[in-house]
Amino acid sequence: MTSSATAPLLRRLNAETVLHVLREVDAIRLGELAEAARLSRPTVDAVIEDLRRIGLIAETEDDTPGRRGRPARLVRFRAERGHVVGIDIGVHKCLVSVADLRGTVLATEVRPLGQELGRKARLDGVRRTVRAALKKAGVERAAVLAACTATPGVVDPRTGVVLVCDVLPEWKGLNLRTELGRSFDAPVLADNDANLAVIGERWRGVAAASADVIYVLAGERLGAGIVSGGQVFRGHDGGAGEMAFLSLLEHTPGAEGIGALAGSVGKEVVARLREHTGQAGFPNQLTGDAALLMGAARDGDAEAQQVLEQILGRIARAVGTLALLLNPELIVIGGGVAAAGEQIAEPIRRRLPQMTSLPPQLKVSLLGDRAVTVGALRTALDSVESSLLNNLNT
Amino acid sequence: MTSSATAPLLRRLNAETVLHVLREVDAIRLGELAEAARLSRPTVDAVIEDLRRIGLIAETEDDTPGRRGRPARLVRFRAERGHVVGIDIGVHKCLVSVADLRGTVLATEVRPLGQELGRKARLDGVRRTVRAALKKAGVERAAVLAACTATPGVVDPRTGVVLVCDVLPEWKGLNLRTELGRSFDAPVLADNDANLAVIGERWRGVAAASADVIYVLAGERLGAGIVSGGQVFRGHDGGAGEMAFLSLLEHTPGAEGIGALAGSVGKEVVARLREHTGQAGFPNQLTGDAALLMGAARDGDAEAQQVLEQILGRIARAVGTLALLLNPELIVIGGGVAAAGEQIAEPIRRRLPQMTSLPPQLKVSLLGDRAVTVGALRTALDSVESSLLNNLNT
Repeated sequence: MTSSATAPLLRRLNAETVLHVLREVDAIRLGELAEAARLSRPTVDAVIEDLRRIGLIAETEDDTPGRRGRPARLVRFRAERGHVVGIDIGVHKCLVSVADLRGTVLATEVRPLGQELGRKARLDGVRRTVRAALKKAGVERAAVLAACTATPGVVDPRTGVVLVCDVLPEWKGLNLRTELGRSFDAPVLADNDANLAVIGERWRGVAAASADVIYVLAGERLGAGIVSGGQVFRGHDGGAGEMAFLSLLEHTPGAEGIGALAGSVGKEVVARLREHTGQAGFPNQLTGDAALLMGAARDGDAEAQQVLEQILGRIARAVGTLALLLNPELIVIGGGVAAAGEQIAEPIRRRLPQMTSLPPQLKVSLLGDRAVTVGALRTALDSVESSLLNNLNT
Repeated sequence: MTSSATAPLLRRLNAETVLHVLREVDAIRLGELAEAARLSRPTVDAVIEDLRRIGLIAETEDDTPGRRGRPARLVRFRAERGHVVGIDIGVHKCLVSVADLRGTVLATEVRPLGQELGRKARLDGVRRTVRAALKKAGVERAAVLAACTATPGVVDPRTGVVLVCDVLPEWKGLNLRTELGRSFDAPVLADNDANLAVIGERWRGVAAASADVIYVLAGERLGAGIVSGGQVFRGHDGGAGEMAFLSLLEHTPGAEGIGALAGSVGKEVVARLREHTGQAGFPNQLTGDAALLMGAARDGDAEAQQVLEQILGRIARAVGTLALLLNPELIVIGGGVAAAGEQIAEPIRRRLPQMTSLPPQLKVSLLGDRAVTVGALRTALDSVESSLLNNLNT
């Protein structure tokens, strides 16, 4: 009974091991593959047969010029077997990325969304962005094997329903899984944007080496994605990572990010800058009041520097609270303001040792506003791999 | 290879299943045991042989009066096979409980410790309390199979070293495992007091049904023990659950609990009460300024009620921060003030829905100041069971 119960599990684990090797190379001989995967040659032969059956493997012959003797069999991962879509629905814009099964991004489309858009208009905008991204990537809708969408607020990970969302009009109660499911012939997953961003940073960002990490999405508003022991910490209803606690403790309106604080705390300075400055000079990830303020501070405007210091002090207290309460190894500052790099990070890093005896590392995201879609792609890829490998056992 | 690799694991799982049943009953026939454990009779016979070999099982005969035929074999769990000790080292006192292997508490000893005691004097006080508790329980030091000690501050769970501790003098840098190891011939574990309290509440307290729970240790100071998905959330260095974030956000000295706040926020009212009141009238878990203040508030003193409302508002903001950021199913208020029950809980519970869209349940600990030692006993029992069952495979 033991061996019949564990065989499907072993078979699947072996397939995962082989896929892990195959995804990192172009094409490989079976002997080399066995060595790299630390599996016996008969085991690898069986796995290759399994993977061919579900379409993940192609075979070619080694036609290296000058090679002698019988041509060797080469296998390669069929990244083109299907595609995944990552969607980031924000307050001001929608980002959609399309990738192959290796996770290589084929196209990204960004479209503005009005802050005031209601549910239907926003969903229409998202669907248009998805169509444009698929077209740009040259991918048919039928070739999409899974999609994952990010939203601000609290999403029930089991159902895809938005349980709480203060920033998008008519968004609470929406079932993202079923609504966006109509745009695909494939499953649609949904999660909070900061949760997906931290997954993205661990896959392809600055958090790759860390199992205890918090990603602070610091754009107009603040949100946090918490990973502990390599797992996303979601809380009982999927609501973990809400940063509105600042409003409880500092008697301010809510989880304001640098953008919102620039417009409130820095209101007068920003008004003056608006009159005199046309262009903030930052990459397009950082726009609006925050960009104006940070550009002026960088260029030596004393008033702007003072207001920025005040705003960053507040962000630092939020980061310090996370550090004290959750003791992560690493905190990543991401979102639009990540484009400002050390101008943001240094003043926060400087304050951390005064706030906690166990200060974490502090890094700025290099993925910028792509971290969320990168995490959405990773989540969609996990879902595809899991359902393809489930077919091994049938 | 598969079956030989999994056999020891299966053997151990079966032993755990059987122990789980045996600990809940006095003595049981093997047939009934097999049924309750959902295992075959030959499997149970093998497990019983294993458990007898490590001394966890005794056999008797069924001598029920009036019973006919051949006497049936009965087995029972040998709770007296060894003992465990749970130690709670606090600012003002030391609690030590001694239990058998079923977790039945045989004796508890409480001794006062001066707040100002240095490392050596405090450790001496702890050792004296341990000796007194063992004597009270009639347990020899050699019969103790494991001990677990709680301390305020941050403990590295791997080494037992106190990494951070602001409240106990000369405590930082202390290796609790080796220092208290001298008092036993058995392993000594060490953890933060709130972490152990949340384990205690899940074992024998109001959190038994919840896998996502936060325990707020609200005595002189505030601390939190966080459990997510049934596991204690420790953070990267064991520092998760520190509540000093309140000092970052409200510009007050630190993680003050109700006791400390009664002495600061309620300073004048408490001074007046001290002159007029001899006895606060609360059980002995709640003493000092907090007891005075809460007793007077309960008896209708308007000034005391006002100060208490202010203090509980602050505690509620701390609880609200935990609820927002971590989205637990349940928050348990524990520590000395738990003795005040609903007088504490109701004002906090009333405020929660204004602070978070996903308010958790709020309960008051019924274990009171015993939650920490109960969790320490559970942790010591887990360690004993694990090391005894490891012997099965040798």
